[in-house]
Amino acid sequence: MNNLEFFTNRASVRAFDPDRHVSEELLDKLLYAASHAPSTGNMQLYTVIVTRDPERKAHLAHRHLDQPAARNCDVMLTVCADVHRFDLWCKARKAQSGLNNPGGRMSAIEDASIFAQQFITAAEMNGLGCCYLGSAAYDMAGFTEALRLPKGVIPLFGIAVGWPSAVGTPSDRLPLDAIVSREVYHEPTLADIDSYYAEKENLEESAKYIAENNKETLAQVYADVRYPRERNERTGVELLKFLSASDDD
Amino acid sequence: MNNLEFFTNRASVRAFDPDRHVSEELLDKLLYAASHAPSTGNMQLYTVIVTRDPERKAHLAHRHLDQPAARNCDVMLTVCADVHRFDLWCKARKAQSGLNNPGGRMSAIEDASIFAQQFITAAEMNGLGCCYLGSAAYDMAGFTEALRLPKGVIPLFGIAVGWPSAVGTPSDRLPLDAIVSREVYHEPTLADIDSYYAEKENLEESAKYIAENNKETLAQVYADVRYPRERNERTGVELLKFLSASDDD
Repeated sequence: MNNLEFFTNRASVRAFDPDRHVSEELLDKLLYAASHAPSTGNMQLYTVIVTRDPERKAHLAHRHLDQPAARNCDVMLTVCADVHRFDLWCKARKAQSGLNNPGGRMSAIEDASIFAQQFITAAEMNGLGCCYLGSAAYDMAGFTEALRLPKGVIPLFGIAVGWPSAVGTPSDRLPLDAIVSREVYHEPTLADIDSYYAEKENLEESAKYIAENNKETLAQVYADVRYPRERNERTGVELLKFLSASDDD
Repeated sequence: MNNLEFFTNRASVRAFDPDRHVSEELLDKLLYAASHAPSTGNMQLYTVIVTRDPERKAHLAHRHLDQPAARNCDVMLTVCADVHRFDLWCKARKAQSGLNNPGGRMSAIEDASIFAQQFITAAEMNGLGCCYLGSAAYDMAGFTEALRLPKGVIPLFGIAVGWPSAVGTPSDRLPLDAIVSREVYHEPTLADIDSYYAEKENLEESAKYIAENNKETLAQVYADVRYPRERNERTGVELLKFLSASDDD
């Protein structure tokens, strides 16, 4: 069971060695490996865009709110949910795609997420460092324009990739009881909530975040500063447009 | 790079050894390992429900359209997108969760998919067989009732888990060019589509599916029989209800 230590010791990497590059050959081997992840009906409803050109990378990093991981990575990937390729296949084969609706497009979001995680696992197992850049969802229109995405393709997240210049530190996780229910959903009591979040709330860095942001609780830092409602609402409007678009739009 | 062979040789497993059981200890180790997958802001917006009780398992298998993998697995997991736990934490800590909207709930769908794939990778690396059961999405209300899911929790897919009784065969994949674009989205030409889907269309089993279903093309089998529009549209209605629900519903 030693391989399980790989999973529990892994960490996202945000600092990359500027002098060491990810070869095209290695990247393609990793993408090929990841493409063997399961997908809905083996339809592979995703596309990944590889950005290496320095100007384009800088442009996308800016759209990723200039996060250090985005600015310093060697290669940036943008993972997209994609029903467009399947639709084109159907059109070329006298078939009417059934994926042009919210249900079909959700399958693409799942396929893309599963593919992305399989890529990251394969990359980390081979020594590369990776970091998800969820910020693609905050500016779907901007990424769509920059990457020339057609209708039926939505940018889900970026992945910053490179050779690590510093080892990442595994971050805290909720205890297993918080995320696993047996037989039916376990509705957490207030005591459960206290216990689930105790480790996270007692981290030294949590006190720092609370103080820096003039908040009373760590949950307020998450809710008001890190993942504010207004931004998620804007993302939601774009998401619903993508999910609900009709063929005639 | 030998570990990449693990990824390219993996296959979903639908036939399980009825005499060999997945121990509680192993399952918990795998779930714990998977919980170290990245998630949005490390919020872990997912819950997994473990079903071992034979009657409950049979009930869920029936809801999974009596697929053999569902009927014969040793343990069934149901992976759910979950903003409810985070909301409870916020309520208990004088914060207003910003995840109660389509944008926040999409993050939960991504987190849950990423967690599920990390579980499957860890399980397969330790000799277990797994199969996604996407059919949970076809009957969200039924799974919600059976698993007593509260508002803010949506069943995404099942995972059938067990010790394999037969080795799975890796299935075909689209060529790398089909799923990878360089710098900007590559809009496929008709010739590209022909080339991307040639291997799949030329498989012996594809001819069988076309004949069995009285269709002209493999795309018609996918679009009319395997992933019909009507079912995806019904799923979409439920999905949009989940994504768009307001706090007061």
